[in-house]
Amino acid sequence: MSQKQGLLTDVIDALCCLPGVGPKSAQRMALHLFQRDRGGAENLARVLQSAVNKLQYCKQCRTLSEYELCELCSSPKRNEKIICVVESPADVWVINQSNDYTGLFFVLNGRLSPLDGIGPEEIGLDLLEQQLESKGVTELILATNATVEGEATAHFIAQIAQQYQIKVSRLAQGMPVGGELEFLDSSTLAHAFSGRRIIE
Amino acid sequence: MSQKQGLLTDVIDALCCLPGVGPKSAQRMALHLFQRDRGGAENLARVLQSAVNKLQYCKQCRTLSEYELCELCSSPKRNEKIICVVESPADVWVINQSNDYTGLFFVLNGRLSPLDGIGPEEIGLDLLEQQLESKGVTELILATNATVEGEATAHFIAQIAQQYQIKVSRLAQGMPVGGELEFLDSSTLAHAFSGRRIIE
Repeated sequence: MSQKQGLLTDVIDALCCLPGVGPKSAQRMALHLFQRDRGGAENLARVLQSAVNKLQYCKQCRTLSEYELCELCSSPKRNEKIICVVESPADVWVINQSNDYTGLFFVLNGRLSPLDGIGPEEIGLDLLEQQLESKGVTELILATNATVEGEATAHFIAQIAQQYQIKVSRLAQGMPVGGELEFLDSSTLAHAFSGRRIIE
Repeated sequence: MSQKQGLLTDVIDALCCLPGVGPKSAQRMALHLFQRDRGGAENLARVLQSAVNKLQYCKQCRTLSEYELCELCSSPKRNEKIICVVESPADVWVINQSNDYTGLFFVLNGRLSPLDGIGPEEIGLDLLEQQLESKGVTELILATNATVEGEATAHFIAQIAQQYQIKVSRLAQGMPVGGELEFLDSSTLAHAFSGRRIIE
């Protein structure tokens, strides 16, 4: 008979649903929580439950938020005429932290992937098109990932936007800041060359 | 203004209390839960809350259990005359999985560490001594870790047990199964030599 039964095992199994957490890490986490940080466990249980009850997708930009209209979409300080399209809510945070972009966002929560059954509707492109049509958007910044799927998705959205005569841009590709030429992969280097800028 | 506020941030902060989880992993976990596995999040919240309410230390062996007396201590099949002393509830699971030990356990939930203020009472040695005194224990197996603190703790407990004329044993040290001599550290090799067994 193994003693590994009951509530503690339930906790370990439940922790395994987290990405990157296997049975051994889950066991270590569960023991840590209940031997050393019961307050942390209680807090985690409480905020998870509260988030499960309240988190939803913002009806305008589809990011995760506890409000029907997220804080950015409801802020009067943001420029409604510019929309930046990203794949995930994490991208919204990164962009907001890194620069002074003041427009709105649109979160795809995925990328086009026909083989997985993810088409334009699954990533909310019908909602985006409505906004392009009705809100007088002047620029659409396509900030999907620089992967094959991200590029394909950006290309697809660019075609939609061009129907409405909206300026469409894509994030620049090239050398990362602090990067060394020697260690750059050849596709990035090719992009850096073709996108070179005149110094005035 | 960063959008990284509100409930989702609370979840990310709460996940950071798990060992080995930093802000980036916590963010990935939170997004995974609320974009792809809301059922998993709900389940995790539920079992954590239930475990926070019910998990306690078994009053006899000090392992974590939802019962006042854990399943092993309350099982009539276990031999009450043998007690195996381990540092953590995880050790109980490992020993139960690996062999046919049928005695009881005693979980220290730590190891002697005077500098950190962990003395005999903090690891429950008064409770262990009561059991040695009253229950007619015949053998005490010291299965603390083979670390400096584990050895010191084992030595300390051995001295207590000898007052009651109880047989005390320590787990064998030597080559791990499948281990190659070439890669063995010198202390382990020394133990393997001094503990060598005659083949009959």
